[in-house]
Amino acid sequence: MEQRKVVLADNEIPRQWYNILSDMPSPMSPPLHPGTGKPVGPDDLAPVFPMNLIEQEVATERWIDIPDPILEKLLLYRPTPLCRAMNFEKDLGAPVRIYYKYEGGSPPGSHKPNTAIAQAYYNKAFGIKRLATETGAGQWGSALSMACAMFGLGCRVFMVRISYDQKPYRRLMMATWGAECVASPSERTQAGRKILAENPNSPGSLGIAISEAIEDAVPDPDARYSLGSVLNHVLLHQTIIGLEAQKQLAQIGEYPDVVMGCAGGGSNFAGVSFPFVRDKIHGKNISVVAAEPTSCPTMTRGPFAYDFGDTAMTTPLLPMHTLGHGFVPEPIHAGGLRYHGMAPIVSHLVKEGIVEARAYDQIETFKAGVNWARTEGVIPAPETNHVIAAVVQEAERAKQEGKEKVILFNFSGHGIIDLSAYDAFLSGKLTQHHLSDEEIAQALKSIENLPKP
Amino acid sequence: MEQRKVVLADNEIPRQWYNILSDMPSPMSPPLHPGTGKPVGPDDLAPVFPMNLIEQEVATERWIDIPDPILEKLLLYRPTPLCRAMNFEKDLGAPVRIYYKYEGGSPPGSHKPNTAIAQAYYNKAFGIKRLATETGAGQWGSALSMACAMFGLGCRVFMVRISYDQKPYRRLMMATWGAECVASPSERTQAGRKILAENPNSPGSLGIAISEAIEDAVPDPDARYSLGSVLNHVLLHQTIIGLEAQKQLAQIGEYPDVVMGCAGGGSNFAGVSFPFVRDKIHGKNISVVAAEPTSCPTMTRGPFAYDFGDTAMTTPLLPMHTLGHGFVPEPIHAGGLRYHGMAPIVSHLVKEGIVEARAYDQIETFKAGVNWARTEGVIPAPETNHVIAAVVQEAERAKQEGKEKVILFNFSGHGIIDLSAYDAFLSGKLTQHHLSDEEIAQALKSIENLPKP
Repeated sequence: MEQRKVVLADNEIPRQWYNILSDMPSPMSPPLHPGTGKPVGPDDLAPVFPMNLIEQEVATERWIDIPDPILEKLLLYRPTPLCRAMNFEKDLGAPVRIYYKYEGGSPPGSHKPNTAIAQAYYNKAFGIKRLATETGAGQWGSALSMACAMFGLGCRVFMVRISYDQKPYRRLMMATWGAECVASPSERTQAGRKILAENPNSPGSLGIAISEAIEDAVPDPDARYSLGSVLNHVLLHQTIIGLEAQKQLAQIGEYPDVVMGCAGGGSNFAGVSFPFVRDKIHGKNISVVAAEPTSCPTMTRGPFAYDFGDTAMTTPLLPMHTLGHGFVPEPIHAGGLRYHGMAPIVSHLVKEGIVEARAYDQIETFKAGVNWARTEGVIPAPETNHVIAAVVQEAERAKQEGKEKVILFNFSGHGIIDLSAYDAFLSGKLTQHHLSDEEIAQALKSIENLPKP
Repeated sequence: MEQRKVVLADNEIPRQWYNILSDMPSPMSPPLHPGTGKPVGPDDLAPVFPMNLIEQEVATERWIDIPDPILEKLLLYRPTPLCRAMNFEKDLGAPVRIYYKYEGGSPPGSHKPNTAIAQAYYNKAFGIKRLATETGAGQWGSALSMACAMFGLGCRVFMVRISYDQKPYRRLMMATWGAECVASPSERTQAGRKILAENPNSPGSLGIAISEAIEDAVPDPDARYSLGSVLNHVLLHQTIIGLEAQKQLAQIGEYPDVVMGCAGGGSNFAGVSFPFVRDKIHGKNISVVAAEPTSCPTMTRGPFAYDFGDTAMTTPLLPMHTLGHGFVPEPIHAGGLRYHGMAPIVSHLVKEGIVEARAYDQIETFKAGVNWARTEGVIPAPETNHVIAAVVQEAERAKQEGKEKVILFNFSGHGIIDLSAYDAFLSGKLTQHHLSDEEIAQALKSIENLPKP
């Protein structure tokens, strides 16, 4: 009987996060204040985030201690197992050993609580009483709701109206954890009222929801805003995934040839890969691959440029791969991957050729995901299906080349709240989404007049 | 930082199931053939179950080897962690240490695959091509669907119509794993057609669905029927839960004063408790508690009697605590606990005073469950909330008595497919269900003329 997974004991959980800013091979462009065009300073961000997280956002030391109260909550579901996908391997018939970090076992079902718990703790420590955030598909909103319940913080989540109506289970998870979930656009904010005045039936968007959450938090001195991806400190909190994986692989004498993750804002991809990217920067010969959807091909078809993080243009300008903040992705089912931009650090690594981006169509991702469920058991989140499609492609290449390969990927979450997407796939209702060059050129008009990095 | 959980490595998984029939303190009454009134023999059951499982049903040796192909699939999610509920303990402020086996991490989200995988394997080994089963809330149907996908068996699930309509996610899970899910009553069987002729809008019942599944399987020589609880071999397969717990508790030098589980058909309760019941039979001074709903109080208010396993009276007569096969429980949300009977072995242990049964109202169970979610993270299944309410009660007793206690319970499953029940609770729409003596007397009329054990 072969070993199928490597588990770590509680006392083997990493005590520090890895900060990749300490190892970047070239300097990154700073975020800019949209009014002045100058780099934003900590004071500009003080009404939005607590100062301890702002400091973490710009920290440059390599290792950052994880406070004990955060570790105690992480231990509720961490360390997560490193599993070997033996049944899936057999089905592929390729000369590969496939390992994955299973992040679907957390209470909300994804990697998101890794940063939600940390952010709730730092806000609490700074004296904040309440957090406001936005959520699209709902993974992030439910993770932050749980974290706030655990630290005794209030939590208000602006959820994109169409998801609010289509995914009642996500909303109910947040309610069970004691959070208030508001359909966005709402009557609670000026931004929301403006949209509703123009279109009372607006389905909402992540951009609108971000604007509402920021507007909700900023005037209240007891409240702050919280974001579940993109920012440096969010990616930092996720590195615990890759650090655990390194320990686990070392225990069985393995090291990956390829490290993979799906990427929407970039946080789960960063989490699994950055500790290995460090090795690559220092000379290790490995591939690091980010999988994105062809319907929102931020890294594979968007330029590296300055852009706003939200549609309403309220955030600082971030240097990143982007399709333009005016880009409206098709309503594909992998809601978590429908973001016009990409984390600046991930974007920088793509620009430098250290990280390779590949795009996958949703039909092939669901094919891979169904095959996964029928061999390995867990039904993957639609987002996770993208990295599984990338793994299938990599295995096929290994077969063609006749070359043995060790693949590590991050299984970011399970999909049992997203089963209507599987229903659409199994009944043949899913369609392919490839953007034309004209559509992309059109979307990029929204960043034409912005500064260049 | 205190240790929060004990994990076992793959090679520490138990290699044998524990068969409590070897340790029973008094002989059990045999199942009877309803026609002849004589004990059923293996041949009577041969059209329904494969012979290797029938042999296991009546096996008396203490330890039964788990075949390697079963172990390999169990390793996808087992051994499960033994966790300590430190945050919940702190909230209760009682002198208790609460440990739980977390069975919600399996791909379908409950303990059910422990036996689904075993049953699929034995049927496959016996040359069977297809299984038929029924499901109420859907936990069992989805677990068997997954297991059949892994062993290349066909799977048809008759799902109670009202759940089929109310819980589309469960149906979609089964479809994703390649199973066929049919709303029951259906046009596929004589039993179904009969009901539909009388009432085209019948909401269905577990009794009808069982009849349909048996009728579907029996005439097809390549098919067999599969049951997810009640039977001896099903309880046997679940003992891996308690066997792992014993190893894990021994590693930290603990032994429980109280072992608890919720009980519908009895399988998850049996799974966690039987290895400890063995110790109790051999002199250990512990309490073993089964938690059931006040709306379906099989053990606390039903007699120990012979009764049919299904409403349509097609099964052998089983000696068990029962409310009568004619009993129709109120539509409380803990669908998995709405069964008129109880596993014969569990019933026998209750009758012998070895297992204590307690009933809890759904309001107090949801209160306990919400408090659990906000402290420990995972949102429990409504069934699991019953044992959490029992833990709360036990902790309060310990506080009153000023006595330290170690509690072990089985966390049978998560509740994120059952969130509408939480919605009803949080919005004050759940009501209490206590049966009157008249209602129970009325229900018991259906077993008046049956033989007595």
